[in-house]
Amino acid sequence: MGKPIVYGPRYSTYTRSVIMALMEKRVPHDVVHVDMDKREHKAPEHLARHPFGMLPAFEHNGFRIYESLPILQYIDDAFPGTRLTPADIHRRTRALQIMSVINAYAYRPLVWGIFVPRTFTESGQPVDEAAIAAAVEAGTLALKAIEGLMTEPDPYLVGRQISLADLLLVPVIHYLAGTPEGGKMLQHFSRLSAWHTALKTRPSVAETVPAL
Amino acid sequence: MGKPIVYGPRYSTYTRSVIMALMEKRVPHDVVHVDMDKREHKAPEHLARHPFGMLPAFEHNGFRIYESLPILQYIDDAFPGTRLTPADIHRRTRALQIMSVINAYAYRPLVWGIFVPRTFTESGQPVDEAAIAAAVEAGTLALKAIEGLMTEPDPYLVGRQISLADLLLVPVIHYLAGTPEGGKMLQHFSRLSAWHTALKTRPSVAETVPAL
Repeated sequence: MGKPIVYGPRYSTYTRSVIMALMEKRVPHDVVHVDMDKREHKAPEHLARHPFGMLPAFEHNGFRIYESLPILQYIDDAFPGTRLTPADIHRRTRALQIMSVINAYAYRPLVWGIFVPRTFTESGQPVDEAAIAAAVEAGTLALKAIEGLMTEPDPYLVGRQISLADLLLVPVIHYLAGTPEGGKMLQHFSRLSAWHTALKTRPSVAETVPAL
Repeated sequence: MGKPIVYGPRYSTYTRSVIMALMEKRVPHDVVHVDMDKREHKAPEHLARHPFGMLPAFEHNGFRIYESLPILQYIDDAFPGTRLTPADIHRRTRALQIMSVINAYAYRPLVWGIFVPRTFTESGQPVDEAAIAAAVEAGTLALKAIEGLMTEPDPYLVGRQISLADLLLVPVIHYLAGTPEGGKMLQHFSRLSAWHTALKTRPSVAETVPAL
């Protein structure tokens, strides 16, 4: 069996989640950098891997996958090691619900609506404060929904073991927590904040903090 | 075990997919109508079921689920009957990829970008033709991606048996095919067109055609 390859920059939250899943399962892998600043994700070479030009893309023994949910599911099913999908139907449903909420409602406001403008706007350049305020509102609703889907009183999102849902959420919360808005938002979500704090020292998390 | 309840209008594509999954598995169920014209999906009663006010929501023995992917996965796992998730890892991955592509790239342009303005614009009212043209372009890319993910030479999207991916796609293609743009677009996708034609007479499809 060949080593799987992850195509994407380590600073992309979805790419980081996929790398973390491979680390959790102790799967040796390669990461091929795709430079978003150089628009490499929209170049023909990457569009052949991901027709929508998004990140990451994945390959294993010639089998190519794009979109994070199927990549994560494939990794969990194809490789031995810790199981990242709960065996219990209710916990498994909550995990997929949380992942669906991240994709549909949380990622865009939290990462692109708050983190990106707060982090990459050059000093002196105008920031669209009304757009950020709208993203805070939408993102707060998403955090509330995610916290509402957590099973309790478990240390991970849906149980006593880490799952794909945790891995999909960690990079998003990491970016959010580094912004002034995010720090304030997370104060209202004590369970999510405690979860994030506890995960920070986990090797797959600590060793994948992106250099920005 | 109580009967599951689907909350949503039968004309919502995602609601129809969930109803079709229950029919395929021969699970007796109830459908509680949520009237989008009366904005019932944004009323407190529905927001308690789905905090983002989307459709459908689902309940079984007091366990509430929102978002179509976890609802469909739950139905397939909780009830006996035909298995709607492929056992083979590669086919299962392709199924989840197709479902991810529908959610992220196909649903919005095909349903809201083409079908809704072409179907519900009152005669004499202006139609934003440039917006429809953009949706045709985005939707064509999504159809090309979905056709590229089909396993071959199988009658269903990812194999010789129907899967959740087929059920998620049928209602979207049904609406698309009824528009002038959709009819033309589908001519370029012979495998998807043949798939759609073959599925039209299947009971779960034929018996859930929405009255518009």
